[in-house]
Amino acid sequence: MDISTLFLLIATSGIVAIAYIGYLTWRILKEDEGTKEIKEISGYIREGSNAYMKRQYSLIAAIIAVIAIIIAVFVGPLVGIAYGIGGLCSSLTGFTGIFIAVRSNSRTANAARTKGLGKALDVAFKGGSVLAFSVVGIGVLGITSLFLLFGGYDMSKAVDVANTIIGFSFGASTVALFARVGGGIYTKAADVGTDLVGKVEKGIPEDDPRNPGVIADNVGDNVGDVAGMGADLFESYVGAIVSSMILGAILYQLPGGISKVEWVLLPLIVSAVGIFASIITGFTIRGDPATALTRATIISTVITAVISYFVMTNLLGSAWFEPFVSILCGLIVGVIIGETSDYFTSNRYSPTKRVAIADQGGPALGILTGFSLGMYSVFIPIVFIAVGELIAYSVGGLYGVAISAVGMLSISGTVVAADAYGPITDNAAGIAEQAKLPGEVRDICDKLDSVGNTMKSVCKGFAIGSAALTAIAFLVTMTQIPAFTQYISEVGSLDRILSILNPKLFAGLLIGSAFPAFFTGVVVLAVSNGANKLVDEIRRQFREIKGIMEGTAKPDYAQCVTIITTNAIKSLVLPGIIAIIAPLIIGFLIGPDALLGMSAGAIITGLLLGLFQGNVGNTWDNAKKYVEAGNLGGKGSPTHAAAVIGDTVGDPFKDSSGPGLNIFIKLMTITALVFMPLIIQYFI
Amino acid sequence: MDISTLFLLIATSGIVAIAYIGYLTWRILKEDEGTKEIKEISGYIREGSNAYMKRQYSLIAAIIAVIAIIIAVFVGPLVGIAYGIGGLCSSLTGFTGIFIAVRSNSRTANAARTKGLGKALDVAFKGGSVLAFSVVGIGVLGITSLFLLFGGYDMSKAVDVANTIIGFSFGASTVALFARVGGGIYTKAADVGTDLVGKVEKGIPEDDPRNPGVIADNVGDNVGDVAGMGADLFESYVGAIVSSMILGAILYQLPGGISKVEWVLLPLIVSAVGIFASIITGFTIRGDPATALTRATIISTVITAVISYFVMTNLLGSAWFEPFVSILCGLIVGVIIGETSDYFTSNRYSPTKRVAIADQGGPALGILTGFSLGMYSVFIPIVFIAVGELIAYSVGGLYGVAISAVGMLSISGTVVAADAYGPITDNAAGIAEQAKLPGEVRDICDKLDSVGNTMKSVCKGFAIGSAALTAIAFLVTMTQIPAFTQYISEVGSLDRILSILNPKLFAGLLIGSAFPAFFTGVVVLAVSNGANKLVDEIRRQFREIKGIMEGTAKPDYAQCVTIITTNAIKSLVLPGIIAIIAPLIIGFLIGPDALLGMSAGAIITGLLLGLFQGNVGNTWDNAKKYVEAGNLGGKGSPTHAAAVIGDTVGDPFKDSSGPGLNIFIKLMTITALVFMPLIIQYFI
Repeated sequence: MDISTLFLLIATSGIVAIAYIGYLTWRILKEDEGTKEIKEISGYIREGSNAYMKRQYSLIAAIIAVIAIIIAVFVGPLVGIAYGIGGLCSSLTGFTGIFIAVRSNSRTANAARTKGLGKALDVAFKGGSVLAFSVVGIGVLGITSLFLLFGGYDMSKAVDVANTIIGFSFGASTVALFARVGGGIYTKAADVGTDLVGKVEKGIPEDDPRNPGVIADNVGDNVGDVAGMGADLFESYVGAIVSSMILGAILYQLPGGISKVEWVLLPLIVSAVGIFASIITGFTIRGDPATALTRATIISTVITAVISYFVMTNLLGSAWFEPFVSILCGLIVGVIIGETSDYFTSNRYSPTKRVAIADQGGPALGILTGFSLGMYSVFIPIVFIAVGELIAYSVGGLYGVAISAVGMLSISGTVVAADAYGPITDNAAGIAEQAKLPGEVRDICDKLDSVGNTMKSVCKGFAIGSAALTAIAFLVTMTQIPAFTQYISEVGSLDRILSILNPKLFAGLLIGSAFPAFFTGVVVLAVSNGANKLVDEIRRQFREIKGIMEGTAKPDYAQCVTIITTNAIKSLVLPGIIAIIAPLIIGFLIGPDALLGMSAGAIITGLLLGLFQGNVGNTWDNAKKYVEAGNLGGKGSPTHAAAVIGDTVGDPFKDSSGPGLNIFIKLMTITALVFMPLIIQYFI
Repeated sequence: MDISTLFLLIATSGIVAIAYIGYLTWRILKEDEGTKEIKEISGYIREGSNAYMKRQYSLIAAIIAVIAIIIAVFVGPLVGIAYGIGGLCSSLTGFTGIFIAVRSNSRTANAARTKGLGKALDVAFKGGSVLAFSVVGIGVLGITSLFLLFGGYDMSKAVDVANTIIGFSFGASTVALFARVGGGIYTKAADVGTDLVGKVEKGIPEDDPRNPGVIADNVGDNVGDVAGMGADLFESYVGAIVSSMILGAILYQLPGGISKVEWVLLPLIVSAVGIFASIITGFTIRGDPATALTRATIISTVITAVISYFVMTNLLGSAWFEPFVSILCGLIVGVIIGETSDYFTSNRYSPTKRVAIADQGGPALGILTGFSLGMYSVFIPIVFIAVGELIAYSVGGLYGVAISAVGMLSISGTVVAADAYGPITDNAAGIAEQAKLPGEVRDICDKLDSVGNTMKSVCKGFAIGSAALTAIAFLVTMTQIPAFTQYISEVGSLDRILSILNPKLFAGLLIGSAFPAFFTGVVVLAVSNGANKLVDEIRRQFREIKGIMEGTAKPDYAQCVTIITTNAIKSLVLPGIIAIIAPLIIGFLIGPDALLGMSAGAIITGLLLGLFQGNVGNTWDNAKKYVEAGNLGGKGSPTHAAAVIGDTVGDPFKDSSGPGLNIFIKLMTITALVFMPLIIQYFI
């Protein structure tokens, strides 16, 4: 196959993804939105989401513009342009996801009302798929176009071009952090604040329309779990592809490196295969939602592996084995991480039940038991990531490490769809409650929602696992770029610089390890501050607006949305700035080796804390759900009260700081990667 | 100065420490124990402590014997003997500490009753000092005697001898882990279980004699905070000395290394200086306890620095500067860590008050706020450890890194005394309550106790900081031992092996990072299991023994002690085994480079989690104390109830898993160090 055919095939996959989005959107919008009440409530949510998205992305656009100019001036104009485009593409993904999410929620509720579970599942999954195929489609098309635009068609320029499109990935990272953190703070401040007054103080059920914070809470699902999560995965997806392309290009130019130019394009090819596999998988979603969604990741994995095998043996000839094994490592590790998260967080298994049982001894014992099991839960994923990386390296070298991340992420089309399906059904359940639809409708939505919860924790594991792999790929790439090679030749041997006994590297390792903790502190504190403000506002409304509790007066939903929006917008700046400024400070102050160490340190503790927070939050959440399902005394029992406290503690972990860490470690390492040449210049 | 004079001086410091213990013991035992009631209650505590110590140390002795034999057979008979002696010395320290602690508690209570605060402070601090000078005295004497016994007097054999006495440090580590973890599980299971029924269910005050668990709770202070803590610091103390001696000996024999044999003995000399400084400091303890104790660490630091300066310029001539700066780094970093912990955990400062304020919004917000601040609190210590190590290395090389740990630990005589003072006053307060002494007595004891709390968090920071430094010293030593040098010459370049891009090392780094999390999970779960069992037993006694609440019948204290003892003894084995087995598995399975990486990974996350857990636990505890002091509604308010939940969650963090991590990372790294030659043999 010649290069142009390859490019054509890759581009086709992206275009097919976009066309598929069009098809899905058409199918969703064709569905009936339902009753006046449904429309009204969905309208509130849509308004709130749009208002938040506008404010968030205006701020992000300003930040991106400033950083793009800095990059253009100090690193290179093309990198600056790529950065801007990367930011734009990421934002586009988020907007597409939200656009359809706030339109699928009502249609899912209505489908549950008129056509039952099967149809509701179908609509919700289609809604999630729109986000998923935006991620992969825009990702593949964006990288491919930029690569060609910058002259990558001439493979002798491949290294330079690849080094330029790192800007694309950097732009995506920046948007992702702000979107994920902002959305995460929004959604949990709204959730916690609304519940603290509604459920705990007033004793009214979740999603009750009398609660002034209820719309803010519903909006939160969209801006946090849809837009934020999409930006997160988009970033991992393009990051893994770009870093493997750079390594492929460097290896291609190295004497004694690989002989096939195809290695540079392999990451895009595998991603293209994954897109087709995910589309095929989409057609298998039917029947029991729990089985259908759990099956989906396995089906995608198998299809991707099989097609990749045929494509790669055909394309690379006898050289197919090494990269294929590396890709397989990524795919398998992804499945293992997902399954482990599922085991530790689903109330089908003993860990979550154990937490619920401990809640009988009061909230402290429930929290302690959850905490211990959360600590256990990181062990298997980390060990498997380590082993996967070791195997990928042993067969494929540094390139193998990078491409294994591409392998894991190639099935993003399926994973993201299954994840984004969750907030849509959650919204649908909320709408069913507020629109006072019959009990069966709410039951269907709840059933879909509880499956969504399981998928959410599987995807959370996948997100942090792939983030670690991507960040490791960035780390590896850092040591292979031309500037670094020059640094080595000026300063000493490569190995001495990279030695763990190099005191600067070790100091960096320690300092880097402290940042994910600091980041967690900042984000969790922002959530509790926001929740506190919302609590005050909701209490004020109940006090001042007469008749809310009797249902004769309407609460001021918009005011709650505004308060939470402002808090999130104000709070999202600091964490993002830390991720970008900290590597620069350490790099310029101590040196390139310290910066390398810092990246590694942040990856290590970021992975640990990210996995822990994601899992423990879901465990507490599902332990509460287990009690609510009528076990151990059920709703209203002291055990339930204890479980609710555990759930509230876990909320910001699982939806704000935990997922934020994914991007934090990627943004930190890619900042190091992009500014490394500048820092090296300063030192030689 | 010739070598024999040096040895004489060092030995003198050890003998002076032992003589000082004798003096202190005599002074304490001379004090009157007081009323019949005081004697009776103190007697119960003494009995319970002795019973636990006997069971724990019988088990530990058996484990030590087995491991000593394994070491003697596989590593070398002398190392095996050194291991046994190390274990013995550590146990001796623990027993001495407990012996005097369970005799000072009653005398402190009685001194408070008859002579007021000044005298009570004096007795309690003397009690703590006995443990402190056991640690430093037995440490210095043990190492010196072994070194001479094994022929280290002939400096040409110094490397071999130093490599042998690593066994001493290993033995001390092993005992330390079991004692710290066992004691930690004991003390918190007793504390949490007793409070859950007593304070929460029955609404009776802390230390109320009607609570069947009250004696178990008092015993816990001794076996956890006295014996466990002493073993922990003993281990850091001897570990730092031994690893610096090995590095000194290697450097001495290296062509182009240092020229002065004194470097081998310098760690012992600095420790000797620290002993004298601590004795001098002891005489400054008077007046307001808070000021006196905070002042004490500063005074010791300054005296040690000044005397060291004179000794080192005299001893090393122009070569004094580099090691002196390294030692100073350790001393200063120790003070910074302590001060940071104090800031984040004392209710004199805003963080703890902020947690108390958040408790007004319920337990979840209090826990979240504490969690965030705990995450913040690790940042400064880790950064300063990194910077300290960087400076120590820059001036003193690898030896500088190791000796900086010795510098930090040289003032252990003071720090341990200030720490062990806490549980003695805590016990005294308990005795005052149970013996129904007048309110003023309890107030004096409480005042002393609350100062003890501050010192405890300062010392906790010190313990984990010094553990990290010691573990780093072990890590550095690992790469310098003869076997490793041989490995390098067989397998490739040193730097390539140590490269962070070496996939085996990186895999080890990741895997190692997961172990402290797993360890935390195991320990916290053991505490909650123990607490649950105790809750059942206390409930049973209240139910079956009529008249407990009315004070007409006595609860069965002994049964509670037995249950908690059995739980702790059963639970302490697994964490210890993990620390020893895991390095062997990774080492033999993946290789020496993976083992190195694993040690580094465990240090990084162990330091992070250890600092976090120690600080956050104290923050919640002191937030509760802040409310109990009458703020924000005071005792009995909903804010207080929320704060109690936070305190209970923090209990096992600060006293079981957190301090356990100190030793866990040391034991893991020293296991790696001791078995490294064997593992290398297997691979070449």
